[in-house]
Parts: sequence; C-alpha cells; structure tokens
Amino acid sequence: MLNDANSSFAEKLSSALPDLTLGPADTAYLEEPRDLSKARKGFVAKPTNTGEVAALVRACGDASVGIVPYGGGTGLVVGQISPEGPIPLTVSLEKMTAIRASYPAEDALIAEAGATIAQVQDAAEDIGRLFPLSYASQDSARLGGGLSVNSGGLNVLRYGMARDVCLGIEAVLPNGDVFHGLKRLRKDNTGYDLRHLLIGAEGTLGIITAAALKLSPRPTSTCTAMLAVPNPAAALDLLSHFRDHAGEAISAFELMSRHGFDFQAESGMDLRHPIADIPEWCVLIEIGTGPGADPEAIMLAAFETAAERELVYDGAIAQSGQQRADFWALRENIPAANRRVGAIASHDISLPISELPDFLVEAEKAITEIAKLRINAFGHLGDGNLHYNLFAPNGEDRSAYRHLASQLTTLVHDMVVARGGSFSAEHGIGRLKTAALQTYGDPAKLAAMRAIKAALDPKGIMNPGAVLPQT
Amino acid sequence: MLNDANSSFAEKLSSALPDLTLGPADTAYLEEPRDLSKARKGFVAKPTNTGEVAALVRACGDASVGIVPYGGGTGLVVGQISPEGPIPLTVSLEKMTAIRASYPAEDALIAEAGATIAQVQDAAEDIGRLFPLSYASQDSARLGGGLSVNSGGLNVLRYGMARDVCLGIEAVLPNGDVFHGLKRLRKDNTGYDLRHLLIGAEGTLGIITAAALKLSPRPTSTCTAMLAVPNPAAALDLLSHFRDHAGEAISAFELMSRHGFDFQAESGMDLRHPIADIPEWCVLIEIGTGPGADPEAIMLAAFETAAERELVYDGAIAQSGQQRADFWALRENIPAANRRVGAIASHDISLPISELPDFLVEAEKAITEIAKLRINAFGHLGDGNLHYNLFAPNGEDRSAYRHLASQLTTLVHDMVVARGGSFSAEHGIGRLKTAALQTYGDPAKLAAMRAIKAALDPKGIMNPGAVLPQT
Repeated sequence: MLNDANSSFAEKLSSALPDLTLGPADTAYLEEPRDLSKARKGFVAKPTNTGEVAALVRACGDASVGIVPYGGGTGLVVGQISPEGPIPLTVSLEKMTAIRASYPAEDALIAEAGATIAQVQDAAEDIGRLFPLSYASQDSARLGGGLSVNSGGLNVLRYGMARDVCLGIEAVLPNGDVFHGLKRLRKDNTGYDLRHLLIGAEGTLGIITAAALKLSPRPTSTCTAMLAVPNPAAALDLLSHFRDHAGEAISAFELMSRHGFDFQAESGMDLRHPIADIPEWCVLIEIGTGPGADPEAIMLAAFETAAERELVYDGAIAQSGQQRADFWALRENIPAANRRVGAIASHDISLPISELPDFLVEAEKAITEIAKLRINAFGHLGDGNLHYNLFAPNGEDRSAYRHLASQLTTLVHDMVVARGGSFSAEHGIGRLKTAALQTYGDPAKLAAMRAIKAALDPKGIMNPGAVLPQT
Repeated sequence: MLNDANSSFAEKLSSALPDLTLGPADTAYLEEPRDLSKARKGFVAKPTNTGEVAALVRACGDASVGIVPYGGGTGLVVGQISPEGPIPLTVSLEKMTAIRASYPAEDALIAEAGATIAQVQDAAEDIGRLFPLSYASQDSARLGGGLSVNSGGLNVLRYGMARDVCLGIEAVLPNGDVFHGLKRLRKDNTGYDLRHLLIGAEGTLGIITAAALKLSPRPTSTCTAMLAVPNPAAALDLLSHFRDHAGEAISAFELMSRHGFDFQAESGMDLRHPIADIPEWCVLIEIGTGPGADPEAIMLAAFETAAERELVYDGAIAQSGQQRADFWALRENIPAANRRVGAIASHDISLPISELPDFLVEAEKAITEIAKLRINAFGHLGDGNLHYNLFAPNGEDRSAYRHLASQLTTLVHDMVVARGGSFSAEHGIGRLKTAALQTYGDPAKLAAMRAIKAALDPKGIMNPGAVLPQT
C-alpha cells in the first residue's frame, strides 16, 4: 500500500534534494481538459535533470509514495491526475526542455521530455527537417507525455504515431535506474525493445526524460484541399482513389461531419468554409511531394476522376498559405467547439478501415433508438481513427441526457470491438478507460501486462491507478 | 532446471497430442548457416495450428522442457539451435503457412508465421500491394522468425524493419496462453505494446504464430543505378545529396567495397559489373516513385550535380528489368561469396550515420596493426548498418588467422559502441552474442529484461540460452 505525498514527505524530500523545485501543486496540476475528474491538493516537483528525476524516483520508492508524471497536462483520459487512492507526488518535466543536440546529416535530434511538441517541430525546422508529430494541443503538449501515450494526430497516415518517430529514449525506471537508451540508430537488435514498452505505458513503467527523434525531409510542395463527399463510404473510396494517384504523398486525410462546423458557428467561432453550401460530410486532404512532382496537378487529376466516379461533388484547393491555414483551422477547431457545446459522451475509436462505413450506419441507428442525439464523427479517416462524440439535440440541454452516457459508451465500444476495432485509438487508457481495458482487452495480454508491471514496479509507485487498476 | 526433450518425453507428448507431427530432428534442424555451432540430436514438432502450438507449450511447461522455435533456419546468430544445456524440443512452424486473409482496401494481410517472406511478398503482389521486407534469404526465411529477430534487409531506409510493417500478432506465451493480437489497426493505444515486446525477443517470450502485416503502394516507376564513389564519406554525402533531390523516394542505398566483387569472382560466380573498371567503393541506389514523377530524371539530375561536387565519378543506370536484377545480384551475392571465401570474423554493426566514415578509417587502422586483413564492409549505408567482415590476405589460408577472431571482434565492437553504435544491427543476439549483450548492454535495460523474462517465463522454457544467459 502506498503512502500519501504529504507535507512531511515533501519536507523530507526537500532536505534530501535541496536543489529540487518542490511546492504545493496549483490548480493547473489538479485538473484535466475535459473536467472529467479532479485531483486532491498535493505537491509538485520540477526536476531540472535526469539525475534529479532518478533521485526523486528512488526517494519515492523508499517512502512508498506514488508518482504521477506530468507533461503538458493535455491528456484526455485522466492519466495526468489522480483523483483516488493515496495522494501521489506530481512530477512535472517542464524544466527539462532542452534540445540536447541536432544531427541534420542523420535526420535526427535529441530533445528533453519537457520540450513541447511545437518546440521540437521548430528545432527540426531549424535544420531544414520535419518533425511530423502534430496535433491541436502541440503548443502545450510535451514530448514526454506525447511519447508516454504514443500520441497520434494529423500526420499519422504518412509518418506514423509517436513511437514511429522515436529512435531511442532515456528514462528513469521505477527502481530509480536510468535507462540510457538515447541511441540514434535506425537498426539495433540488441535485446527486448524497452523503448517500445515504455512508449504507450503512460508513465506506469517509468518516466521518459529525453528522446532521440527521427526527422523527415520537408515536402518541397504541398497542396491542401477541402472536398465535399456524399457520405463516409465514398470518403473511404476517395482515399483509396487518391492512394492510386498520389501513393505515399498523402499526409493527411481528415473526415468532418457538418456538425463540427455548426458547432463552431454555434460557439461563436469565425467560420470560413470554402464550400458555400456547407456539406454534410467533407474531407480535408493534403498532398506533400518532394522534388520533381506537382501536388496540385496530382490533386486536380485525382479530383476530376473522383468526380466522375461520384466520390466527390464539390471542393476547393487552398490557393495561399493563409487559405491552407483556414482549411486546417476548420478541422483543428472542432475539439474546442465540441467542448463549448458540451458532449454527452466522447469516444476515440479506430476500426479496420473497411469496417468503418457499416459501423457509422449501424451505430447511428442504435444510438437513435436510445435518443435522437447529434453525432459528431470526425478525424483521421486515413488511419481508421474517428473521434465519435455524442451531443444533445439542437437547443436541448445536455444535462437531460447525461444519465445515458455510460449506456451509450458501452454501446459504441461494444460495436467497435465486435468489428475488430479499438476503444482507444490514440488517447490511451489513463484512469478513464481502465474498466474498458479490463472488459475488452485480450486476457493473455492483460495477464502479461500485470506480470510486467509487477516485475518492473513491485511497489506500484509509477502512475498508480493508470492503465491497470490499482492493486 | 530444465529436462531433456528425450524419447520418453516425446512419447508422452505424442500420446497427449496424437495429431501432432513429431519425430527425430534431421540434420536440417541441427545446423545453422554459418557452421558456428551444432545442436545435439533431438526431436522436432510441427504443429499445424495455433491451438496445437498452445497445447505443446503447455505440455513443455508442465514437463519443464525447453522449446526452440524454428522458422526458416536462416538466422545468423545461433538463435534457432541449442548446442548446450538440457536438450530442448524444436518447434517448427513450417506447416503453418496460410495467408489467412487479404484486405486490399486496408493495405493489410494476415499471414501465418510459417509463411516464407517471399510467400508474403507474393500474396501482397496478388492484391497490387508491396510487402517491403526483403532480403537474400527471403525464399526460405519464415515470417515468424523474421518478426522474432526484427529482421531488416534491403528496404529499411524507406519502409522500416520487420516491426515497422507489423500491425498485430498472434502468439503463444510461455504459459500456453494465446495472445490474440491480430488487429489490423493503424492506431490502438490500449495498454503495453506486447507486439513490440515479442518482436525482437527471438522466441524467448513466446512463439509468434501469425501476424497482421502492413502493406504499401507499389512504386509505379523505379530507377536503379550503380554509382562509383571515391570513398564511404563521399557515399554518405551522396546519400544526403540524393535525399535533397529525391526525398523519401529512395528505397535502397547500399554500399559495397571492391572486395565483395572480387570475392564473387574468386568463388566462381558470374560477375557482370556495369562499371568496367570495378571501383574500390560503389553504391547501389534505387528510387521508386508514385504517379506524376520520373525517377530516372531525378536520378540523372542528382547524379549530374553529385558529379560536380565530386561525390561520384562514374555510374550506370539499369536500362531493363534484367539489368536491374543484375545490379541487385551484385549486391545480394556478396554474403554467399563471403561464405565461400570464409571470413575470420563477421560483424553486423550500425552507427549513427555521421560516425560511419571515421569509424571505417580508424577501424581499418586498428585492424591492420593486428594483421593485414581484407576488410569487406558492405550493406545498408542508408540505415547506418554495415556488415563488416574480415578475411585472410589474398592467397592465404584463414586457419592461420582464426585465433585472432575474438580479439578482432572485441576491437570492432568496442569501437562501434564507443561511437554510439550497435554490435547487432539486424541479426539479433541469439546465442552468439549473449556475452556481448552483457558487456555492452545498458545495465538498467538488462535488469529490466531479466525481470520481464522471469515474469513471463518463470521456468525459462522459451528458447533457453538465447538473448539472456541461461540461469
């Protein structure tokens, strides 16, 4: 059983580590973006280097005090705050933001875990390269958190998830040992891949303190278009059609339902949709090419033949950087608009791509039998990943529907899992989805996870209660 | 302590699993390609389905009998045979070769672990897609083995290693439980990534029985060239130069030293080098593009400016499919030629790319101080991965130098690791490199590996003695 990280522990820690910034956690560290949960008052430590993190972890282990690793606080599954059980120490990496080194000739850089995703993007741009991880919260989300949840985002279709752009990590393990794994090698088959085990473990197996990251060439030309499609099934055929025309050059393929735009208007955002008659469904597609190719020509050719096949019926190509930014804002403002309108239930699901259209039809049918809700399905169609959020009917208050939330979520998750899909595509498990993981997770995998957790963190100090239920 | 898989165990197993093909192992299962080691006589089981594998593993666990999972037998680090300790049961997946399903719309297929790499490539081609894993032994190497060692090969630069093309796996864990992880999702953040833990574990944490694999679009046009470079440093600048011209379209960038061609001639192979005056160093480069690009135009433009920068001084572009095959044969025949000539010591190393030229110069210096050997360095320069093999001087017998092997290997590995490199880039650890892993491995990682092994396989039945020393 763990002990509280109370004032007496904080005092002891301060005298053991006099250089450590340690103090009461202000509200920023006690809340999470969706207001699903609140942490109790406690302490936050802000180490400045890996040695300090290691000393901290060792001290917490000795005192049987839990640790919640804290990145940018942008996680959506309550992984970064602990509302129950003994009060843990929050360990924020915000003072470890250095770009330790850049290697342009190797398409690599090494950044500390406290650097924001945007800082890493900038550091890559400084050496003429692309760090492709990208999502709406990138200005506050930090690298360590992004890796710990294996974050996804807007460019996964082409460049993969966080784990796919990580060559190596440095991490403090639950026993306080430092795993020196900052290799910047493309190939290194020397034993179990501890990097991939820690990535996606959401801080339950250690604290990532730095990472060696894989950069990509920057596309030399980009073409961005907003295309109106008759329905999601057509959007999928359109993706396949574009793959035939543009191969691997498609870097984003985002589906949006009309609700996403209506919500932006409802919540007072400045809505500039390039298609005058805002479509029920549209797709934001981006093609980025290297030298010797013309992405706009590819886009136009693909659009024309797609129109003949009735996969699209209207569209606009961004004619300037500003217009491209406007197109993207239409997509990126959806989560904020959703929050302002207020969802009854939100889901971060993925499906085998060919299962998606049928799921959307069947799920809508089943949900409508329960209540006539507005379904805002949007997101990374190219990855089979949709954010599938349910809202009260127009003009009605969501409080009248909130009692249906868990029933609706079970319905959605059941249907997703029955089709070979995932109930958490990119957000992780945190504390929000531990029960779902127990319900839907493969039993052999769950047993292996528990065995690994017990082996590496026998006291259970690392992010207690996240991913696996607290024992 | 484990027990021998002797005749009495085999009899018991046969009566427990009467449908299982089980018999004495013929020599094919007792040898490995480099004649480094030989297994003792024993038994081989050939299950036909996952349930049978699970029953087998459970029976071995109950009897405390070790298991060596066997794929195509092409591994180069003695992972597939056990020369020491209690005699294990060899479990060959050769009867599980089905392509269970293909999903063209999802760029995915599901194959059983006994399918050869070439069979998987063919299945992908049948649906107009590319399975990019490719290496010289692909006609006999099997998928399960390839995943277990996280094999690399010729297309890693563009498409990644085995783990990068694997969406999900089905595996039998050491306790006989079946991990049903054959998801064909691009995104699935639901707990620890058991897939990535089993990939690269070389059969020490379970037996992979099937995999969901990620396919890629087939390039619509390809251009292959053989270019003469002044030295490896120029080859690296050339890579960077080509990246600026061709972006991500470079699918292969292989360095070859003249020794590789001389060895082919020496060992009686038909040598047709497109550059009449065979260069000391040359590079095989392949550019594959999607629609709307002309790879030969890109190649020519890049070659011209590279020549101005004196990064290349001669070259040839393949003008037909036959010529392309000839170019590739020059590269792919090197390992066979090496085997015929007979190396004193072979190394599968990787380095941060910018460290490579200095390493090659310094290592040659240090080796020459010990003996005037022929160094055949060749391989996947674009990945920082070279096969660095040492041979007796021309006309001399290698037996006079074999006593130097371990000294030379220590020298090479010390220099590689000091530069942040790896002593096993793509071949794995097997039983050949367990001592090297103990010497060079990160202590925190090694401790975590031992803890994970003990947690998942407390009796130590899975591939005993591979990766970690037998306890």
